[in-house]
Amino acid sequence: METLKVVRKTFTMLSENHTQVLDITKQIRDIMLSADVKEGILLVNSLHTTCALFVNEFQGALIEDVKTMIQSLVTENNGYRHDDPRYSDCERGNAHAHLRAALLGRSVAVGVNDGDLALGRFQSIIFAEFDGPRAREVNLQVIGE
Amino acid sequence: METLKVVRKTFTMLSENHTQVLDITKQIRDIMLSADVKEGILLVNSLHTTCALFVNEFQGALIEDVKTMIQSLVTENNGYRHDDPRYSDCERGNAHAHLRAALLGRSVAVGVNDGDLALGRFQSIIFAEFDGPRAREVNLQVIGE
Amino acid sequence: METLKVVRKTFTMLSENHTQVLDITKQIRDIMLSADVKEGILLVNSLHTTCALFVNEFQGALIEDVKTMIQSLVTENNGYRHDDPRYSDCERGNAHAHLRAALLGRSVAVGVNDGDLALGRFQSIIFAEFDGPRAREVNLQVIGE
Repeated sequence: METLKVVRKTFTMLSENHTQVLDITKQIRDIMLSADVKEGILLVNSLHTTCALFVNEFQGALIEDVKTMIQSLVTENNGYRHDDPRYSDCERGNAHAHLRAALLGRSVAVGVNDGDLALGRFQSIIFAEFDGPRAREVNLQVIGE
Repeated sequence: METLKVVRKTFTMLSENHTQVLDITKQIRDIMLSADVKEGILLVNSLHTTCALFVNEFQGALIEDVKTMIQSLVTENNGYRHDDPRYSDCERGNAHAHLRAALLGRSVAVGVNDGDLALGRFQSIIFAEFDGPRAREVNLQVIGE
Repeated sequence: METLKVVRKTFTMLSENHTQVLDITKQIRDIMLSADVKEGILLVNSLHTTCALFVNEFQGALIEDVKTMIQSLVTENNGYRHDDPRYSDCERGNAHAHLRAALLGRSVAVGVNDGDLALGRFQSIIFAEFDGPRAREVNLQVIGE
């Protein structure tokens, strides 16, 4: 049995639109490969409260459906208190972005098998910006042997 | 202090219906017991994009309520672009299944305490098929001592 | 390279209302500090099926918006089978609480960087009670070096 280790990395993403969904599997995989871990787990966290991370198929039409779904479940300008200067000093009008991030989650954990991400054939790690354009920090840990 | 180790396992589930919700706690627990880890964490991931994993009570009437909720939040045949041959070459008409999986999540992480899953009295690890019947791979890592 | 270790802890939360959203970052951070881990990951799980854990900004007006969103997506007394004595012997009438917990999730994993939680400036670890008042157990693992 080999000794386990932990490797940490943070990288920055630049979103270019208010709402933008990006496939970040390649960035994550490259970091994992540099960690030189063969078996273990990888944890990815956004360090923000108005963008999300999740895993699904990154297919253009489906991504449009994801945006439509989340915009339908959490509409913009819905009388949110967080956007009302009487109750909040946040001036971004971004309550919808917080709520969308809370629904989709900001964290992905995947296995590391044989030195690669344990993702299925159609799975991508997906970043969803809901209050861009912004610079976003993504924090990773790889633990394993 | 003992040395930590990582154990990996993949197993296949066979769903029998288009929508099917199954309690997989026993399969997961058996794998965990065979890993011989006393303290640590267990990570379970579906390797697919149209089924989900989550933790809740596995009670028949409640499972019907879960299905009703997810079918209400994400209706079938809602004009999804992923189901439209002009925008997608996927011919399964399964956009609703992708969206349901994205909402509920495809990953469960639980603690391992005293050699058993750290689940509460009413907690089960639940697999939800949204595009069955299919064969589904589930990937696990146990890390601990 | 140092040897990795795993530290486990369980603590109890007392909620005081039917629906209550609490910032538990300080309790979690204190436990993490006592684990004396510099780099690794922290896993937090509720051991219950009618409350949630998630990460977002803990700002009073926004928390009201979170409650409004979840109450809108999953309404109370919506003819749930889990609340119907013909289908369930649960007498709490709490199907809505199960469904809200399933949507928001009951688990948070965050990195440990330089001996502190890898949380962004506006991120808090948030506990959401949907069937209180209750005593709730929260289980944690810290794995790292």
